Amino acid sequence: MSSVRTPVVALAGGIGAARFLRGLVRVVDPTQITAVVNTGDDRNFYGVHVSPDIDIVLYSLAGCADREKGFGLEGDTFRLIEALGALGHETWFRLGDRDFATCQHRTLRLAEGAGLAAVTDEIRRAFGVATKLLPMSEDPCPSIIVLGAGTRVHFEEYLVRDGAPSDVEAVDLSAATRAAPGPGVVDALRSAGTILVCPSNPVVSIGPILAVPGVREAIAASGAPVVAVSPIVGGAPVKGPADALLRGVGAEVSARGVARLYADLVSGYVLDQRDHAELADVESLGIRAVSVDTLMRDVGVAAELARTVLSLADTLR
Amino acid sequence: MSSVRTPVVALAGGIGAARFLRGLVRVVDPTQITAVVNTGDDRNFYGVHVSPDIDIVLYSLAGCADREKGFGLEGDTFRLIEALGALGHETWFRLGDRDFATCQHRTLRLAEGAGLAAVTDEIRRAFGVATKLLPMSEDPCPSIIVLGAGTRVHFEEYLVRDGAPSDVEAVDLSAATRAAPGPGVVDALRSAGTILVCPSNPVVSIGPILAVPGVREAIAASGAPVVAVSPIVGGAPVKGPADALLRGVGAEVSARGVARLYADLVSGYVLDQRDHAELADVESLGIRAVSVDTLMRDVGVAAELARTVLSLADTLR
Repeated sequence: MSSVRTPVVALAGGIGAARFLRGLVRVVDPTQITAVVNTGDDRNFYGVHVSPDIDIVLYSLAGCADREKGFGLEGDTFRLIEALGALGHETWFRLGDRDFATCQHRTLRLAEGAGLAAVTDEIRRAFGVATKLLPMSEDPCPSIIVLGAGTRVHFEEYLVRDGAPSDVEAVDLSAATRAAPGPGVVDALRSAGTILVCPSNPVVSIGPILAVPGVREAIAASGAPVVAVSPIVGGAPVKGPADALLRGVGAEVSARGVARLYADLVSGYVLDQRDHAELADVESLGIRAVSVDTLMRDVGVAAELARTVLSLADTLR
Repeated sequence: MSSVRTPVVALAGGIGAARFLRGLVRVVDPTQITAVVNTGDDRNFYGVHVSPDIDIVLYSLAGCADREKGFGLEGDTFRLIEALGALGHETWFRLGDRDFATCQHRTLRLAEGAGLAAVTDEIRRAFGVATKLLPMSEDPCPSIIVLGAGTRVHFEEYLVRDGAPSDVEAVDLSAATRAAPGPGVVDALRSAGTILVCPSNPVVSIGPILAVPGVREAIAASGAPVVAVSPIVGGAPVKGPADALLRGVGAEVSARGVARLYADLVSGYVLDQRDHAELADVESLGIRAVSVDTLMRDVGVAAELARTVLSLADTLR
């Protein structure tokens, strides 16, 4: 991959991004990669600051993520929150004992006045991760899901507590639109050699990052090729509620539908081979598209996908 | 025990008190007992408010204390603090995962504005404990140990981190002397039918309670007999650093030495049969004394000891 233009900056959400980045670090020097990570899912649970997307990306890159659950640490136990449950707390957000330690450390450091970016950097060093992770913002940016009855719920309540009901009417990212980009985000994007959009939920993972003022401008100013990976495989999201959320914002649940959302952002798009029939529609948007196997069953597939993405980027200069 | 004058109020420290109270609740209706508990050991660890004496008394009365360790919950795990250690935290204070939950709940409730007494009451109800536990004070009352070189350390640092060195020069309870008694403490003492001093460390467990303004006055105003149990067995403390601390305040490390510290407080004193030779010296202080087996190997011995204490109290009206 000698033709990869570094640094590579990836816009990242949760588990889909985590899996893709595990492949990417196999084909590009990890120190030349920066992930700008969604913090729209961040919330206080049990008194600690939880950053779900930062943590799953971190744990995955450290090789200690719980791959079955798609969140948390492999082999973690849940004694603390079970004990909190006995003391009357709601425990629908399953934060493991070691995962709690990460979040408690973050909370303590934030209370000491450290910024989320600095704390994230400390934690990723402690986990031995070479790839930089930048929170999209240090300001609170809760992504709010608006449901049928006008009920407004935090994304984690929607996803975890309520089981991702399908009656999504709108997604409110207004907090992100008023937030400042996190330290290093604009600089990283402006000086990027290649910009990737991970196969994450376009509405609630990539959407909040792009909603932060200055992010789109920095991407444009970089002059770098921007390539997205479709989070849709065979017409449906691999994991999570992207279908309800895409419908909620009036988008088609398809590789093509996601490409339309990204039309003003990306010049390249990798979709799954199962959605190959949509390739021409994507290209009609002025986006160069490639279809391959994007279902990252293991890190080998993820690395092969990363190679495809970078090769496509190389053709877009 | 029909002659027990209730309510019974017990001044309590840590493990010695916890063992004694487990016996006491077998011979007196637990709802007729109130323990006024030392909070001089309280400290923030890992961002949570730890109340070591309240918790060991609570866990013991709930039947779920770790009896081997003398602190924490039986079968607890230590994954959270081990993970905090990997993130750079000192972890000499071994707070288990479920124990952490108790402390985190306390911390969250305190942050919401609840008082330590109310929170303690919530927790003891959640643990199904019928005996009321009253923090001696809701104000911070750190017991400070002054060591040879003039070093001043919090009691938990002295005991746990430093392994209880013997060069104690003084014990600074000045924080307790400036604290307000906790809600209910003065009322409970004033209306007590019987007041007991548990076999706890006289210097750093009972000492801070007595140092809180109003506590001695309330005991005197009650007109109730006051009986202490010696924490010394065979000339040495059963557990903990009472010897260094007694020497540090110029007291003799003996049943007799502890009785002298309590001379202006108690009218009755139960010492261990192994220290029987000191009984006459104790009585010469104007204290009625009895010697029995005070080594609480099991709850049966503790219950028998409680019966002896209450019988002695009954003779002192």
